[in-house]
Order: sequence, then C-alpha cells, then structure tokens
Amino acid sequence: MLKLVIGNKNYSSWSMRPWVLLRQTGIEFEEVKVRFDSFAPDSGFKRALARLKVAGKVPVLLDGDLAIWDTLSIAEYLAEAFPEKALWPSERKARARARSLCAEMHSGFSALRSHCPMNIEAQLPDIGALVWRDQAAVRHDVARLSELWTDALSQHGGPMLFGEFSVADAYFAPVCMRLHTYRLPLSEPVAAYVERVRALPGVQAWIQDALAENDFLDFEEPYRVQR
Amino acid sequence: MLKLVIGNKNYSSWSMRPWVLLRQTGIEFEEVKVRFDSFAPDSGFKRALARLKVAGKVPVLLDGDLAIWDTLSIAEYLAEAFPEKALWPSERKARARARSLCAEMHSGFSALRSHCPMNIEAQLPDIGALVWRDQAAVRHDVARLSELWTDALSQHGGPMLFGEFSVADAYFAPVCMRLHTYRLPLSEPVAAYVERVRALPGVQAWIQDALAENDFLDFEEPYRVQR
Ligand SMILES: N[C@@H](CCC(=O)N[C@@H](CS)C(=O)NCC(=O)O)C(=O)O
Ligand SMILES: N[C@@H](CCC(=O)N[C@@H](CS)C(=O)NCC(=O)O)C(=O)O
Repeated sequence: MLKLVIGNKNYSSWSMRPWVLLRQTGIEFEEVKVRFDSFAPDSGFKRALARLKVAGKVPVLLDGDLAIWDTLSIAEYLAEAFPEKALWPSERKARARARSLCAEMHSGFSALRSHCPMNIEAQLPDIGALVWRDQAAVRHDVARLSELWTDALSQHGGPMLFGEFSVADAYFAPVCMRLHTYRLPLSEPVAAYVERVRALPGVQAWIQDALAENDFLDFEEPYRVQR
Repeated sequence: MLKLVIGNKNYSSWSMRPWVLLRQTGIEFEEVKVRFDSFAPDSGFKRALARLKVAGKVPVLLDGDLAIWDTLSIAEYLAEAFPEKALWPSERKARARARSLCAEMHSGFSALRSHCPMNIEAQLPDIGALVWRDQAAVRHDVARLSELWTDALSQHGGPMLFGEFSVADAYFAPVCMRLHTYRLPLSEPVAAYVERVRALPGVQAWIQDALAENDFLDFEEPYRVQR
C-alpha cells in the first residue's frame, strides 16, 4: 500500500496537499507521521527523512522501495498511477492552466506564507487585521489568488476551480485554511470558494485530525505563547 | 507555431530551461524576448506580461490563445504534446525521481541562486572563492546537487542524469552555468557532468546568444560595475 510521510497536521501546509488529494479521491494509503521538531541537521525529523534519501522535507510518498518527494511530483505520480481518478482536469487547456496555478503556488505567495503560517487550530483575526494593514505584499498575494480563483471559477462554473475537485483545489486547501484563520478580507465568490474547500470531506478529515493533535510548537507560533 | 516568451539570455535562468528543452529536442518554436528592466509594477517588462494574464514572470509558453506560465507546467505541457520526444524518462520510477529533482530545484537551492546569480558572459572565480569560503548554505546546496547528480548518473549510467537528455538536464542547465562562472569546487564526476551539459548543442546555442546580447543590467550584477 502507498505510504504518505507527513508532518504535524496543524502546521504542515505542504503535507496537507497530497493527504487531502488522496483522501478526497478515495485512494487508499497509510499515513506515517514525523513530528516537527527543530529541523536542525541532527534532529529526529531530519534523521528520519535522511533514511529515505529525500530532500529532508515532508511530504514524501512511498510506493514500495520508491520514495517520491515534493508535492508536485507526488501529484504527477498519483495522476499517472490512478488515471480513473482524473486528478488533473481532463481537458488539455484546463490541465495546462491547473498546472500553472499549482506551479505558481509552489514557488510563490511567499509573503502570505511567511506572515500567515498555517495554524488550523488557531483563530487569529486581530493578527490578520494588522498583517493586512501593514503588509502590502500580503495584500498583493491575496489579490493574485483572487484573480486566479475568480477566473477559474467563472470559466469552469465551479464548484471547484476546474469544475470537479482536482489537484489544484488540494494545492490551495492550505491557503484556504490561512485565509480563514487570519480572516483576511475576501470578495464574496472567493470567500464562498474557501468555504466550499473547507467543507470537502477530505479537508474536514484533515481539520479534525489537526484539532485532535494538541501539540504546540513554539517555532510555528510567531503569534502565540500558548493555545 | 509555439512561442516562448523569455527574458535576457545572459541572466534569465528560468527562461533558459524550456528554451534548451525545446531546442535540444528539436521542437520548433518562435522566441519572443522581453528585455529585463526594473520589474517595477509599471515597467515595460511587467506591462508586456500583464497582457498575457500570467504570473508576471518569464518564461511563458504560448500555444495559440493558451498561455502557460512557469517552467514546470511548460515542461509537463510539452511532454504531453510531444510524446515521441520522451521529454521525461520513460521508465516509471525514473520519471518519478526526475520530477522530484526538478520540483526540488523549483523551490529550493535558494542560497546558490541568490549568491551566484546566473551571468553567462562573466567569469567570477574570485567571487566564487569568497562565496564558497563564507556561505555555508551555498556549500550545503552544492553538496545536495552533487548527491542528487552522482546518484542519478551512477544509477542510469550517464551521460545525462537519466541516461538520455531529459527535462531534468534542461532544468539543471542554468545551475551548470553558475557552477562554471563561479568555479565552485566540484567532484570529478560532477564537473564532468557540468561539462557535458555545457557542450549540448541546445545549451551551446543559448550560450552563444547570451554572449552576443551585450546588455549590462546593474540589478543583475551584484559583483561588477561594468563588463
Ligand atoms: N517544495 C516542497 C516543500 C516541502 C516543505 O517545505 N515542507 C516543510 C513542512 S510543511 C518541511 O518539511 N520543512 C522542514 C525544513 O524546512 O527543514 C514540497 O512541495 O513538498
Ligand atoms: N517559478 C517560475 C520562476 C520564474 C522567474 O522567477 N522568472 C524571473 C526571470 S529568470 C522573472 O521573470 N522575474 C521577474 C520578477 O520577479 O518580477 C518558473 O519556474 O517559471
């Protein structure tokens, strides 16, 4: 059976993507959790990953003796292995656009990622208001997301970005978590999309596990000293 | 015909990837150059890209009215459109590994990228020696490249990372340029791979164009005041 190596569910935005993709599309897998720690070279986290000969980050997909690291290559691997699940949009142009969106997320939106780290269990509307007031780059990132999502939703008619659920929605699920936690201002259609993503059974399952985790990690908590 | 929108050949490492991929595999395309400028929101560069409704960066692949941005989604699009060119390794596991390498490059190696920006026309061995002495993160990035390349070359027998030329080699071609410009210390097999990449006809064609460009841009030149 496939195994997915992930980090803490409350904090690990990258781990969330393939987990939601697998769960929401009903692909069976076993979860292997490596608890976040300091990420120092000799930490338990880094030593566990070093054994797999990967980039030292989660997620990692294990298929027998094959270790696949990085969310994008995991998505491509699963899309090839389970063609009946149509993980990418089946129409050629829509697929190219979906991949462009995911790739932009993969190397972009750094202001949103650094100022609003994922923290599913937290509610940080006041922090969100300050970030929104002071960080033009965050406003810029949210405007870009809004443009991408609004375009895709209006072109494909919803409910998900490319009609049915696809890799693209799994890819933006952690962003939806952030937008919710920090209550950043959103247009009505974008806010409605965020709610639809949050309501997906695969996303709900991840959220429930994150809430049950009960693990407070200082270095993932720039805005709180305790829960 | 396909069009590829790129930036300055001397400096634009991301543009180089799909250009080399197309050229080296003999896929016909027309090149559209958008000269680098300040990248300010109202710059000529940003205005040219805004018209395409993409992420505001190069490269962009245009196929009729379809604009595909980001090197990774361009690679996937081309691999689907030209199956006879075998742009990814044809063996399933090798393909998964090649994609993992490319994805790691896509969001990683930031120390090497920031301390040793691509500058094909320059020769900066002294800067390279200082960077090497002072920047542990650059040494770490090169060690990781070395590990990835040495593994792939020994598993697949060379001459390219996965045997024949693939997306992975195009993806690392700009890194080979940097390693050469800054003369960073490399093991013998890694240095030999760098030389093989530099000698590929598709890479040579890009280098010749870069040398002929004769365009000195201050903001891409942290180490020189003139040529
Ligand atoms: N580009 C990678 C990013 C993975 C990533 O950054 N994962 C984080 C956890 S969410 C991690 O493992 N961090 C450990 C570290 O940076 O040392 C992917 O798409 O999988
Ligand atoms: N992740 C993108 C990166 C593209 C990128 O950063 N391109 C640079 C030129 S090499 C650019 O257009 N920079 C303009 C800017 O950052 O404003 C890709 O893979 O295509």
